[in-house]
Amino acid sequence: MHRADDGFALDTRLAADTQPVGDLPLSRVLLMNDARFPWLILVPRRAELRELTDLEADDRRVLSDEIDRCARALQALEHPDKLNIAALGNVVAQLHVHIVARRRNDAAWPRPVWGSGNMHAYATADLTAKLDRLRERLGTTSA
Amino acid sequence: MHRADDGFALDTRLAADTQPVGDLPLSRVLLMNDARFPWLILVPRRAELRELTDLEADDRRVLSDEIDRCARALQALEHPDKLNIAALGNVVAQLHVHIVARRRNDAAWPRPVWGSGNMHAYATADLTAKLDRLRERLGTTSA
Repeated sequence: MHRADDGFALDTRLAADTQPVGDLPLSRVLLMNDARFPWLILVPRRAELRELTDLEADDRRVLSDEIDRCARALQALEHPDKLNIAALGNVVAQLHVHIVARRRNDAAWPRPVWGSGNMHAYATADLTAKLDRLRERLGTTSA
Repeated sequence: MHRADDGFALDTRLAADTQPVGDLPLSRVLLMNDARFPWLILVPRRAELRELTDLEADDRRVLSDEIDRCARALQALEHPDKLNIAALGNVVAQLHVHIVARRRNDAAWPRPVWGSGNMHAYATADLTAKLDRLRERLGTTSA
């Protein structure tokens, strides 16, 4: 058995592009700092993960529960037309799962969000308000 | 409790773009008929699913296991540099999960495969051989 966080360090590019929402039992929850799309990223706090198949079976089940929890939070807060949920990792190797609330009139619809145009950072007050609502809904602890 | 397949009908666009590999306990497994990328699609055989959050908790756990099984099959057969695993559904509404074996020299790398160029159908012999290997590895039953 290993303890969560042992040897875990958040990838520097993920850290640069996001704001921390907080921690769930397995995963750190990040908010992509892109006001075009309500967009969470889950990063399991284990060392050396690249693929979903690198997870132990118990951790994989917890991650599935945490994806579901974040997806439901975005549905409740953002009322999207569609969720896009994906583990890609072609650019950032550290295992991370995108949960993106899509709308039929958003900047990339119906294309995927990855590689679509330029990030548009939140205004500070909007970011603070969004993080507060997510933390309350998800019950995350401080990252 | 509902029985698998009750009210399930495969989306016509998914059917047109793929060949059936076979069925796992919950999901139909399809092979995208695009020789550029080894690419499986899992479709849970339940009626009226659009989002992962529409799955009952037990089905969600089974789907996670079936994603893992298909991901490991592609790793064993294709030796990819990276797997891309995603539930998008912006174009085809029926819930389906992509599992794509990516290589650093493939036609879309490092971009996602969706919307990238035109499909390139397998030669018949290649398709037959690939389906046979997948069926043997996955232990699917006839769809």
